[in-house]
Amino acid sequence: LRPPESHEETDGRPLPPGWRSYTSPEGQRYYVNSCSKETTWRRPSLSAEAPQRLLARHQSSPYGKLSHLCSQPSIYNINCVTFPLPGEGPEQQLLKPNEWSYCDYFWADKKDPQGTTSVAGFEVLLQKQLKGKQMQKEMAEFIHERIKIEEEYAKNLSKLSLSPLALQEEGTLGEAWTQLKKSLHDEAEVHLKFSNKLHTEVEKPLLTFRGDNFKKDLKKYDHHIADLRKQLMSRYAGVEKARKALADRQKDLEVKTQQLEIKLSNKTEEDIKKARRKSTQAGDDLMRCVDLYNQTQCKWFEEMVTTSMELEKLEVERIEWIQQHLRQYTTLRHETDMFNQSMVEPVDQLLQNVDPSKDRELWVKENKTSEVRPVDMDI
Amino acid sequence: LRPPESHEETDGRPLPPGWRSYTSPEGQRYYVNSCSKETTWRRPSLSAEAPQRLLARHQSSPYGKLSHLCSQPSIYNINCVTFPLPGEGPEQQLLKPNEWSYCDYFWADKKDPQGTTSVAGFEVLLQKQLKGKQMQKEMAEFIHERIKIEEEYAKNLSKLSLSPLALQEEGTLGEAWTQLKKSLHDEAEVHLKFSNKLHTEVEKPLLTFRGDNFKKDLKKYDHHIADLRKQLMSRYAGVEKARKALADRQKDLEVKTQQLEIKLSNKTEEDIKKARRKSTQAGDDLMRCVDLYNQTQCKWFEEMVTTSMELEKLEVERIEWIQQHLRQYTTLRHETDMFNQSMVEPVDQLLQNVDPSKDRELWVKENKTSEVRPVDMDI
Repeated sequence: LRPPESHEETDGRPLPPGWRSYTSPEGQRYYVNSCSKETTWRRPSLSAEAPQRLLARHQSSPYGKLSHLCSQPSIYNINCVTFPLPGEGPEQQLLKPNEWSYCDYFWADKKDPQGTTSVAGFEVLLQKQLKGKQMQKEMAEFIHERIKIEEEYAKNLSKLSLSPLALQEEGTLGEAWTQLKKSLHDEAEVHLKFSNKLHTEVEKPLLTFRGDNFKKDLKKYDHHIADLRKQLMSRYAGVEKARKALADRQKDLEVKTQQLEIKLSNKTEEDIKKARRKSTQAGDDLMRCVDLYNQTQCKWFEEMVTTSMELEKLEVERIEWIQQHLRQYTTLRHETDMFNQSMVEPVDQLLQNVDPSKDRELWVKENKTSEVRPVDMDI
Repeated sequence: LRPPESHEETDGRPLPPGWRSYTSPEGQRYYVNSCSKETTWRRPSLSAEAPQRLLARHQSSPYGKLSHLCSQPSIYNINCVTFPLPGEGPEQQLLKPNEWSYCDYFWADKKDPQGTTSVAGFEVLLQKQLKGKQMQKEMAEFIHERIKIEEEYAKNLSKLSLSPLALQEEGTLGEAWTQLKKSLHDEAEVHLKFSNKLHTEVEKPLLTFRGDNFKKDLKKYDHHIADLRKQLMSRYAGVEKARKALADRQKDLEVKTQQLEIKLSNKTEEDIKKARRKSTQAGDDLMRCVDLYNQTQCKWFEEMVTTSMELEKLEVERIEWIQQHLRQYTTLRHETDMFNQSMVEPVDQLLQNVDPSKDRELWVKENKTSEVRPVDMDI
């Protein structure tokens, strides 16, 4: 057993921030960056040349090495997740530096202003999704209401178009009038068509997009991440327990060493050896617990990234879907106006052609009683 | 007293059809066309040179002249009005040869196909007017129904536009959605405006055009013409009675003349003189009655022309009024469509600008929990 490595490099030259050096069981020195999880055999220089990534960072961690027991000033723990202290360690590059990607911004928990309750970052993302789903449903309801309004409007227009009012108007004015009623009938048809198309091309897609399974799927994501957090919590508890056990063992070792100073005996020396063995064992246990914790946190990290990017994709899909169908709505509205307009055109045409003298001619031809005028009676 | 003139000209040359010659009290010969009511001192020739119109045809008729008592083959009488027989007399020129004017075509009565009932020509014109008035009223009712439909539509759209559905949609999509609801509100306003303008600019003018007085006015026309017809009827009865009286007197004179042949006596000669005087008196009475009748028919004729032309003017006015207001209706409809279309344009614009990544940026900035990623725990 070697004593824990000091924070300073043995040859006096300082390591870049976040790096520490350890000695392997074979006696060879290696370097670990506790923030970036990088490990390397080559001494990192201050010139900050991009350090070589460790392919399997946990597997190659040197087990059984107890480095330092002192509190870690460069990290802190929030809700069982370990974060670097602000300003400590190398600056973190965003995973997707050119996008405002969910995967970069939802690591900590969200606290309300009073700090009484907190919501996990992932929960914030899920709530956004569920709200989006709700909005989509409400838009479909809105469109449904519009459909009902259009249907009723069409029904009323159609009914009016069949009314016998002014059915007996004659001549060119009569034609224009008949066309006006016909145009009303066509207008009703246009609105009925609008309402039907709104149903099939807007309401239905909005309603059926992400059916009932969506919430189940989101719950799966939620459970998955929550399970990982739970595991993280238990692993963290394990670390704490092991840390406490190590402290107890080291205190015991210290007591034993003090006893040796007071009364030198083989019995005490045996006790010290035993206490030292137990302390080493406790150190190894702590190392194992930390490693398990780190493995779990790494797993959680990866799932957080994967899942939040999945949620991001779902959100984009939702917005594009709604955009597409609201555009379909405006297209249909536009068409309705265009059709309506075209319905009125023939009325306009016929009204343009209304000609009282022509009407009179037709009516007189049909209704005249006699064109022979009376003459004076003769005796 | 001179015996009635023969149908043939005394000098042997035939007169053109419809013309007869009479001798004035002063012994001068004059010529009368019983169809065209023309009278002239100049003998009309067969070359049918346009005869000079008599300025005051009745006043210059030679009273006290009994021309012929035989039935008049060139005229016939329908419902107390005297018409020329078809093909007899000079062809009548239309009063308004270039128009199908009411004043030319409604002189006789209209009989139904069974010939059981007949309606005066003027009544046909009045019925046309009343039907027109009814049509105008029904159009106003139709527009009123449309107004109600538009009002309800506007009310429903407005209500929907205020619904809280999908109120919490966010980002650029949220903006587009808000605009969509706003556009619905505007659309409701457009339809409400349409309905209000329909009321003031179409329904009201149609309803108030020719108010309740119109029917009264028409009744006045009707009574006026009917009174003239009634007068005509009584004058006709007078003519018939005078004609019968003259026939009786002439028969009496004939009997007396035969008696003179059987027994020549001063007493009989006195009786003949007396009978002849009475016959002449009866002839004068008939002439007076015919003259009165002709005056009344002339008055009726003039009023028929004046009034039917007035009705014609009313009908033109009505058609133009309705045409103008139905065109206002189509203009308003057109505007409604145009406005509606312009309401959808900003929605389209905003939907065009929907940008999920921009939305994500805004949302992440507002909702992010932490962009610091976890690091491995160190011992």
